[in-house]
Amino acid sequence: MSELVTALKSAGLAPVLDADVLAAHAVDHAGLVPAGKAAALVRARSTDEVSAAVQVAAEFGVPVVPQGARTGLAGAATAVDGALLLDLSQMDRILSIDPVNRVAVCQPGVLNAAISEAAKEFGLRYSPDPGSWQISTIGGNIATGAGGMCCVKYGTTPEYVLGLEVVLASGEVMRCGRTTAKGVAGYDLVRLFCGSEGTLGIITEATLKLSPIPAERLTLAAVFDTTADAGRAVTAIMASGAQPSLLELIDNTHLRALEALRPMGLPTEAAALLLAAADANPAAELVAIERLCVESGAAEVFRATDAEEADALLESRRSAYHAMEKLGTVLVDDVAVPRSRLAEALDAVQATAERHGVVIGVIAHAGDGNLHPNIIVHPEDPDSLAAGRAAFDEILETALAMGGTITGEHGVGLLKRDWLVKELDPVNLAVQRRLKDALDPLGILNPGKVLRR
Amino acid sequence: MSELVTALKSAGLAPVLDADVLAAHAVDHAGLVPAGKAAALVRARSTDEVSAAVQVAAEFGVPVVPQGARTGLAGAATAVDGALLLDLSQMDRILSIDPVNRVAVCQPGVLNAAISEAAKEFGLRYSPDPGSWQISTIGGNIATGAGGMCCVKYGTTPEYVLGLEVVLASGEVMRCGRTTAKGVAGYDLVRLFCGSEGTLGIITEATLKLSPIPAERLTLAAVFDTTADAGRAVTAIMASGAQPSLLELIDNTHLRALEALRPMGLPTEAAALLLAAADANPAAELVAIERLCVESGAAEVFRATDAEEADALLESRRSAYHAMEKLGTVLVDDVAVPRSRLAEALDAVQATAERHGVVIGVIAHAGDGNLHPNIIVHPEDPDSLAAGRAAFDEILETALAMGGTITGEHGVGLLKRDWLVKELDPVNLAVQRRLKDALDPLGILNPGKVLRR
Repeated sequence: MSELVTALKSAGLAPVLDADVLAAHAVDHAGLVPAGKAAALVRARSTDEVSAAVQVAAEFGVPVVPQGARTGLAGAATAVDGALLLDLSQMDRILSIDPVNRVAVCQPGVLNAAISEAAKEFGLRYSPDPGSWQISTIGGNIATGAGGMCCVKYGTTPEYVLGLEVVLASGEVMRCGRTTAKGVAGYDLVRLFCGSEGTLGIITEATLKLSPIPAERLTLAAVFDTTADAGRAVTAIMASGAQPSLLELIDNTHLRALEALRPMGLPTEAAALLLAAADANPAAELVAIERLCVESGAAEVFRATDAEEADALLESRRSAYHAMEKLGTVLVDDVAVPRSRLAEALDAVQATAERHGVVIGVIAHAGDGNLHPNIIVHPEDPDSLAAGRAAFDEILETALAMGGTITGEHGVGLLKRDWLVKELDPVNLAVQRRLKDALDPLGILNPGKVLRR
Repeated sequence: MSELVTALKSAGLAPVLDADVLAAHAVDHAGLVPAGKAAALVRARSTDEVSAAVQVAAEFGVPVVPQGARTGLAGAATAVDGALLLDLSQMDRILSIDPVNRVAVCQPGVLNAAISEAAKEFGLRYSPDPGSWQISTIGGNIATGAGGMCCVKYGTTPEYVLGLEVVLASGEVMRCGRTTAKGVAGYDLVRLFCGSEGTLGIITEATLKLSPIPAERLTLAAVFDTTADAGRAVTAIMASGAQPSLLELIDNTHLRALEALRPMGLPTEAAALLLAAADANPAAELVAIERLCVESGAAEVFRATDAEEADALLESRRSAYHAMEKLGTVLVDDVAVPRSRLAEALDAVQATAERHGVVIGVIAHAGDGNLHPNIIVHPEDPDSLAAGRAAFDEILETALAMGGTITGEHGVGLLKRDWLVKELDPVNLAVQRRLKDALDPLGILNPGKVLRR
C-alpha cells in the first residue's frame, strides 16, 4: 500500500484503488482527450473530507482532479497520471431554499435539475439550463461556467452564483461572495472560481440566485431554405429589441438525424429550423419574431399550439446530440462568434465538412452566436479520426478569425488548452499563469487543465 | 524639477504640478477620508499615455491613483502622498456601437449617461444607472462595480462588461474578455478587474453589453405609516415572483427634506414612501404590486398618471442626497442586508440615530436590501463629527450582524478598508492579498485602497 493511500486512510478517508473503478472515473464526456492513470479515488462526503484529501495530496505533491457527474465536454474532469480523483457527487444535498431572498444553498453534487425541482413550490427556478441539466452537477456547472438554452435572455451560470465555499490548494476552507442581492466588498473571488475548472480551488458549497418562473411561454418554429436566411432572421430578431427566452437553430444534418431517430414530421429538406420562445408578453413578442422570420425569407413558420407541442419541439432540440450518435462517434465542438456572423460561421463549418470529407451537423444557441458543430468520426478508422480532428481545429480557427471564441460554454479543459494560447494575448496569458501560481503554488489542482504545465 | 517629472516629460507626458490643481484633484465625493498630497497629475489621452505614465511610476516606485470624475463615495480616487494622479476623464470617446451584437466600446472617461444617449437611436440603452449616472464615468463605474436603481431587475455594472483593455502595474497593455455574447476561455479576468478600484490595473477601454429599451414603464408610490409595514411590502413583492424594474424606499427624514427643498406634496407624515416601477407587462405587474402594498398595510397608493408624474417621483428619489445636504454635511453610508431584513435594518438605523443624537435619513434600493443611511454631521463641531462617525460604524456593525455586507455598491476604497477585514474571513483576505501581490508586486497601483498596505 502506497504512502499516499496510508496517509489518506490516516486522515479518515476511504480511498478506492480498484482498477476498474479508477478506469471508469478516468474520463468525462470529452472526445479526443487521452486519460491518465489515477492513483486513487476518494468519494468526499463533506467539506472536511475534501480539505483532508487536498492536504494529503499537497503533502505528497499528488495532483487532485475534482469530479462531479463527469458530463463535461472538454476533459476538465479527465484523470491525469498519478492523480487523486476527488468525486464530489455524494455531496448532493440542497441545504436551504430562501424564497423571500430568492437564494438556494447547495452542495456541489446536487444535479442542476434538482434545484429547480425544489424551488418550484415557491414559484421559483434556477435559470441556467445546460443541455446536461438533468445529469450534470451544480459544482461542475459552476466550475465550467456552463451555458444553456435560456442564456440568450437569462445569462449563464456565473451570473447566478452569489457565494461559494472553496477548498484551496493548501486545504484551507474559504468562503467568498455573499447572500445579499448586491455587494462589492473586495475582489470578486466568486467569479474567479467560476469557470476555473477545478484549477484554482474545489467548490464545496454554492449560494445561488433563484428567479421567478415565467407565467407563460410561447414557442414557434421557422423553416428556412438557406442558412443565410436563417442567420439573417437571427440577426434581425436580436437587433429588433425582441427578447426571446430561447433562440435555437437546428441544421439540416441534425434535422435528418432527428427525424431518423424518431419521426415527428421535422422539415428534413430545410437548411435550418429556428426555434424561438418568449416568456414576457409572449404573444406580442412572437408576432414580432414571426414577422422578422418571414421578412428574412422563412419558407414556413409554425406556432406550437399548446405546451405539449412546444415541449416536443424543444425535446427534439435537446435530442440533437443523441440523434447524431446514431451516425458515429460525435466530437462536440463549441465556438461563439458575434451573432451578426452566425450565417457566415454556419457556411464556413459546412465548407470545412466538405473539405475534410466528414459529416458535421450544427446546432446553435443562435441568439448568442454560440455554435455546436457535431463532427461524426469512426474512431476505428484512423483516416476518419484524422479528418475529424482537422475539421475540429479548422472550426476553432474560423471562430477566432471572426472575432469569436474557441469556447462559448463548454470550457477549455485538456481539449482546447493549446487553442487558448491562440485566443488570448501573451500579456493576458501571463496574468492567467500568475493567478494560477498565486493560488496553487505547488501546481496540484487539476494540473495541465486550462493552462499547460 | 524632480526626477519623476523629468521622466514623465521624457515619456512625452505633460505633468501638472500646480498646487491648486493637485489639491482640487486630491479627493473624491467620500466623506471622512483624509487626502494625501500628490506629486503630479497627468491627464492621459490614450492607452499609450497611461502605459507610459505607469512605466515611469513603476521605475520610481511612485503610487499611481487613477481618477475619472471623482464622484466615488469611498475614497478610491483620493490622493495618497507622493502619488501620480492619473486623470482618465479626457479619454471620453465612444469608439463604436454595434446594434446587432448589442455591444458598445468606450474609453473610460465616457459618462454613463452618454452611452445610453448614443445607443438610443438603435432602441438600446446601457442599463446600469448609478445615482451619479449623469456625472460619473464608465471607467469609475466599472472600477467600483457600481449599482443603481434598475439593479433589482437588471443587475449591476459588472454584469454588463464583456471585455476590458487594462494597463497593468508593469505598464503592459492587456486585453481580456470578449465581444461575443458568451465565452469561457480561461479565467474571468474581466470580473477580477470590475470592482478592484484601480488596485490591480487601470481600465483604458471597455466593451459593454447594451439592452433593449423597455417599451413602456409604469410607476406607483405607496405610503406607509410604519417602516415595518413598508419592509413587509418589499418582502411580499420580492417573494411574489413580481419583477419590479425599480423598488425604492424613501424614509420620513428624506421625505421632509425633499419637501423642504421643493414642495411637491410628498407625504411628510409617512414613515416611508415606496416607489415601484414595472416595464414588462407593467399594468398587470403594478396591479399585483399595489395589492401587496395594500395587504402589507399601505395607508395610500398612488399611480403615476403619466410619464411626467412618474419622472417627478423618480426625480425626488434622485434628489434625496441633495435635499439632505441642506441639513449639514452628509456622510453617505451603503450597506446591504438580506432583503427580508430590510425593515429590521431601517429600525436599527433609527435606533442608532437616537443613540448618538444624530439625524440619519435612509434611502434604499429596497428590492435589493441595499440601504443608504445618510448621516448629517456638522464638521466644525467635533462632537457632531464624532457622533456621526460612531453612527456610521454602528450601521456597518448592524449590517454584518444581519448577514449583510459593509458595501452594497459604493465600494471599499479608503473609507471601509478596516471594515473589510471584519466582513471577510482570514483565508479570503489572504487570497485577496495574494492576488494583489501577483498583479502588482511593487504595490504601486492605488496603494492602501481596499486592502491596507
